[in-house]
Amino acid sequence: MNKQANHSPELVEKAVHTIQMLAVDGVEKAKSGHPGTPMALAGIAFEIFTRHLRYDPLDPAWPDRDRFILSCGHASMLLYSMLHLAGYDLPMEQLKQFRQFGSRTPGHPESHLTPGVETTTGPLGQGIAAAVGIASSIRMLGARFNQVAPVSTARVFGIASDGDLMEGVSAEAASLAGHLKLDNLIFFYDDNKITIDGKTDLAFSEDVGRRYEAYGWHVQRIDGHNQEQIREALDEAVTLEGRPKLIIARTHIGIGSPNKQDTAKAHGEPLGEEEVKLTKQAIGWPLEPTFLVPDEVRAIFKQRAEQGKLAHDAWKKEVDKLQKAGGEKAALYERLMKRAVPENLLEELVKVAPAKDAATRAHSGVIEQRVAALVPSLVGGSADLNPSTKTYIEDSPAVVAGKFGGRNIHFGIREHAMGAFVNGVASSDGFIPFGSTFLIFSDYMRASIRIAALTHLQSLFVFTHDSIYLGEDGPTHQPVEQLWALRLIPNLDVVRPCDALECAGAWAHALGRKDGPTAFALTRQKVANIPREEGFDPKVMLRGAYTLADAKEPTLVIVATGSEVEVAVAAKKILDADGQRVRVVSALCWEQFRREDESYRDEVLPKGVQRVVLEVGVTYPWLAVVGEQGLVIGHDDFGSSAPDKVLQKEFGFTPEAVAERIRKHIAGERTAPVAKKKSESAAAKKSESAAPAAKKSEGASAAKKSEGAAPKKRKS
Amino acid sequence: MNKQANHSPELVEKAVHTIQMLAVDGVEKAKSGHPGTPMALAGIAFEIFTRHLRYDPLDPAWPDRDRFILSCGHASMLLYSMLHLAGYDLPMEQLKQFRQFGSRTPGHPESHLTPGVETTTGPLGQGIAAAVGIASSIRMLGARFNQVAPVSTARVFGIASDGDLMEGVSAEAASLAGHLKLDNLIFFYDDNKITIDGKTDLAFSEDVGRRYEAYGWHVQRIDGHNQEQIREALDEAVTLEGRPKLIIARTHIGIGSPNKQDTAKAHGEPLGEEEVKLTKQAIGWPLEPTFLVPDEVRAIFKQRAEQGKLAHDAWKKEVDKLQKAGGEKAALYERLMKRAVPENLLEELVKVAPAKDAATRAHSGVIEQRVAALVPSLVGGSADLNPSTKTYIEDSPAVVAGKFGGRNIHFGIREHAMGAFVNGVASSDGFIPFGSTFLIFSDYMRASIRIAALTHLQSLFVFTHDSIYLGEDGPTHQPVEQLWALRLIPNLDVVRPCDALECAGAWAHALGRKDGPTAFALTRQKVANIPREEGFDPKVMLRGAYTLADAKEPTLVIVATGSEVEVAVAAKKILDADGQRVRVVSALCWEQFRREDESYRDEVLPKGVQRVVLEVGVTYPWLAVVGEQGLVIGHDDFGSSAPDKVLQKEFGFTPEAVAERIRKHIAGERTAPVAKKKSESAAAKKSESAAPAAKKSEGASAAKKSEGAAPKKRKS
Repeated sequence: MNKQANHSPELVEKAVHTIQMLAVDGVEKAKSGHPGTPMALAGIAFEIFTRHLRYDPLDPAWPDRDRFILSCGHASMLLYSMLHLAGYDLPMEQLKQFRQFGSRTPGHPESHLTPGVETTTGPLGQGIAAAVGIASSIRMLGARFNQVAPVSTARVFGIASDGDLMEGVSAEAASLAGHLKLDNLIFFYDDNKITIDGKTDLAFSEDVGRRYEAYGWHVQRIDGHNQEQIREALDEAVTLEGRPKLIIARTHIGIGSPNKQDTAKAHGEPLGEEEVKLTKQAIGWPLEPTFLVPDEVRAIFKQRAEQGKLAHDAWKKEVDKLQKAGGEKAALYERLMKRAVPENLLEELVKVAPAKDAATRAHSGVIEQRVAALVPSLVGGSADLNPSTKTYIEDSPAVVAGKFGGRNIHFGIREHAMGAFVNGVASSDGFIPFGSTFLIFSDYMRASIRIAALTHLQSLFVFTHDSIYLGEDGPTHQPVEQLWALRLIPNLDVVRPCDALECAGAWAHALGRKDGPTAFALTRQKVANIPREEGFDPKVMLRGAYTLADAKEPTLVIVATGSEVEVAVAAKKILDADGQRVRVVSALCWEQFRREDESYRDEVLPKGVQRVVLEVGVTYPWLAVVGEQGLVIGHDDFGSSAPDKVLQKEFGFTPEAVAERIRKHIAGERTAPVAKKKSESAAAKKSESAAPAAKKSEGASAAKKSEGAAPKKRKS
Repeated sequence: MNKQANHSPELVEKAVHTIQMLAVDGVEKAKSGHPGTPMALAGIAFEIFTRHLRYDPLDPAWPDRDRFILSCGHASMLLYSMLHLAGYDLPMEQLKQFRQFGSRTPGHPESHLTPGVETTTGPLGQGIAAAVGIASSIRMLGARFNQVAPVSTARVFGIASDGDLMEGVSAEAASLAGHLKLDNLIFFYDDNKITIDGKTDLAFSEDVGRRYEAYGWHVQRIDGHNQEQIREALDEAVTLEGRPKLIIARTHIGIGSPNKQDTAKAHGEPLGEEEVKLTKQAIGWPLEPTFLVPDEVRAIFKQRAEQGKLAHDAWKKEVDKLQKAGGEKAALYERLMKRAVPENLLEELVKVAPAKDAATRAHSGVIEQRVAALVPSLVGGSADLNPSTKTYIEDSPAVVAGKFGGRNIHFGIREHAMGAFVNGVASSDGFIPFGSTFLIFSDYMRASIRIAALTHLQSLFVFTHDSIYLGEDGPTHQPVEQLWALRLIPNLDVVRPCDALECAGAWAHALGRKDGPTAFALTRQKVANIPREEGFDPKVMLRGAYTLADAKEPTLVIVATGSEVEVAVAAKKILDADGQRVRVVSALCWEQFRREDESYRDEVLPKGVQRVVLEVGVTYPWLAVVGEQGLVIGHDDFGSSAPDKVLQKEFGFTPEAVAERIRKHIAGERTAPVAKKKSESAAAKKSESAAPAAKKSEGASAAKKSEGAAPKKRKS
């Protein structure tokens, strides 16, 4: 339905002015926002929405709608104005509530909040990178069904700014899009030569077009204010096959504003009452009423919405055809569109939990294969670490250019783009996506993980090599603060299974969680499968933390996670022999446990019973569980390059050492007098920097380390 | 000193084999590591070290040494082998201790640990991005003195892998390097067509050379195993001016290994005893002894070291000339090389602390100007946010291509490259660098911040817009977990000043901290300057936390940070009126406070006196201070787009609301029954997800929010 409503140049100009002035009035009323870019992009947005974009405002969730992604989210008033005109459930009242508490028109677009907003943008580069994931998911759905009936044929249109293209995440994503030859991806680059600091050439003088050609994109260059050129470029872009397309549109920020056009002043603040007046006069627009939408302009979008409705109906017929055809395809389509997960998933996964001792990354890999069999929506890949993260779906090929039928995606060494890509797939239809890498590299993709959490996306992030025990790769690769740094992101769950059974629990937790992302933390090294007590009900794992090994009227509770649970159980045996009665609590997902009702939490962690926490990472937040004077056995310093068993011994994390540290703590002794003496050494300094926690939790081991790998003082 | 020792092809081959086999033997002995890449790059490294690299192994800190950066840090055995042969203090014993506890040869190179290692690499892309900072700092030093005497003329040579060039951080940095026309930057791209998953074309099919040309780099393409081609390419690269240079070297990973060459198996694991044997036989190398270095090969490097010594001596003469010339230049040079900071810096900064109420970003900007006047080493810039972060050094121009005399750097919208660039400058000589952006975007550069902390670099990260109070930009830009996520990074200090005076304290803290990075958290919104009590000694601010407003025999201590201190002081007045005796403790730098001795900590936070913490961010780690049942008034959910005063009211952070929440807590009441009822709403769910902390800390406000901006449920 690219049929072109050929409107008169006068009417088009009036429509463009309408969009521009809605943005200007919205920003002015909010006394906050970005007017210049919506003004500059109005003409482009108009052509996209009225000549190409296929949408049905009455059903924003229509799976085969074309997508529009405003990667420069700060220009949000452009998007809100377009969605309002297009007929989405975004009444004028909302445009007047721009940037106000409780409105659906926040400063930057949030996809969970506003109908028609496809993905959350604002942090630059995230939009265009997510768009690569969205375009891919459309292709992946199409590859499964279009031969029977063309049910997934949508295109992704978008606009990116200088900032979007300067960000590394967009560079990673653009390279991947070129590699996958995503010809359903069409982006405009708003080349306005202006940034917050002034002219872009203060810092940006590369040849963007040539760079995108190097990525394998088709590149056009146009005047972004010449409707004819915009139309021609779009017509070529939508027809040309085999490559993603970039249209470099030279624009003028704040166009029409006599005093602010082409200046940074038009970027991030209202034009100001006087300048608004001058601007409206300059373009011949009535000063009153504000938020004016001429009827003939409304009519254009009404007509477009009707075309969209027709396309939507035609699509429904194709879906009927698919369903009537019946068989596997029809069943698969239904399951995909529901992102169906079997009720008894946990039960099914527990059955395949390997009985042998192995790394939790290996257990997870085995269980993931079963998940893939039971949940056809599961797709994903790694950032070039398949042999390490064990996430490759075995009975399916990888997605390659032109062949999107596979369930595996080779993201390349591009963690940040992987995160945004996964979010894009999660915000589309049909799939539950995962991305995998080492836990340390969650730092490379943190901005995307946060957007998944903010936007309630079911994005799965599978992180392996989850502690210093990855060993010889050393401190640059050994996570110590990452577990807690992730747990602190609102609405993100971190699951750190201790053995095969808990890997089943972890996957069941993540697949059951529809309104937010889950991050897995899995070991590189082998861990023991821990025997459960008689009558153990696997469902208890879904409560986040539970009693794994108990004692009658416990005198001490050790809370441990992941690879440390095995150690806690061994330490329990030693301490029980002392006459203690130790309970070991495995905390698979602390966020979930904190969501449980108080009675369950008190049942697992009885008030008044002494607690110790064991996790080989930073200790401070765990003090919440044991109190400021309590004992957290962890590691408040960077790791060291050595075999994992050596690290366990050197840092004092063997069952014997752990039991001894607990004994000493109970006896009220300090375990780290050493650390004080060594305050010369940087390592010791760091160990003290974690005081008081560190003093009790790892002083001695850190001091030992300071003897070992004490960093040389720098020249300074 | 690019004079070419013309060695016979046979001798060169023997030297290359020596390097290759040292790496092979080192990995084999460690039973862990990456042999294939060192084997492939040995020929290139040999030509760099013996024909161009200017170094004096007896003084690894010689400021004008050429730098060698191995961006693909996993090939560390190549670097260690080269440093050993070059004569650095890295004896054979250390090569035999590769990847063992306490050695100077960890899995990935760490610059604070090993002489001759210029920057810490391993996390891909960090090395080449830091190299851009190093090359710039050499130019910046040269621009200040070379006209008097050429004291800063060094070049930066390096090698990057596929992974380095796929990472966004390297794309950002390469674009910036091209923009700055850094012709003292010469990198090889190890184009071996192999990654962990297999062939690079699984995910990487772009035209790298063309991309770098688009960035403005000079690009050559060679056979990486043809010494003649390597020499010619290097000769051209070192002579060509006006552009950074990329030499794309087609190599064969694991070259010489009969069964593993050109396979992923040569990448990340030892060749194995049998394959080592076959390889040594294939290249005609004795099986015994291992770690063999023929005398004639040692002789080559001995000769090179002597040339280096001569160059070093010649440089010393230039420095003498500079010093003899005397005057400002000589004085400046001395201060820069010492990175001199006045003893009385705090005193000086306190003098200029503005008396008027303003945003701490504004106060910080004023104080930074004074720092710049007193500390000539201070240089830096922002990621295109100068008008917002207020960090531009006013009396100095910006660095531009060909003109490096300025102290300001326009990083562009490239936070990650900015972080790595800052680290590069900090690991060079002369400068104390800062990079600034919004606190939320610390997520974009977290991997670089971590390397600064691990490597003990004095990198300064100035983050503004440090809470939900940035207001209308909304949740995508409002940090809530970032403060604690940063505090958890070992050896990173976070300073969050409450007013002008504490901004002086923050800068004094950061400038005084030579062995690690400091992150500033500054407000966008105006805050009040808080009157200090009689006889207040500013030095107390350097202890991290101190009593700001006191009461006789306090019954309650409120610990607050940054913009919340003003609110705590106002709440104190209300509660004092109730008959409470409230002390307010301002926690400018919690990490520092935890390093203070116990007696000071007990003096500020007396045992047995009830505590409350107030910080508008995630609450959980603060429970360490107040105990699991204690009260932390914070925000465990994403923010909302609205003016800051509205958010303060809606979320219950006004002095009155805070006082009321404290009253209720003291009365032992629960403040958030509401939140439970609303468990349907995602917002409320999230507010519960922070339970128990949340229930007490922000339930009511979150519930209020859930009425306001309750996110629509997704289709799923």
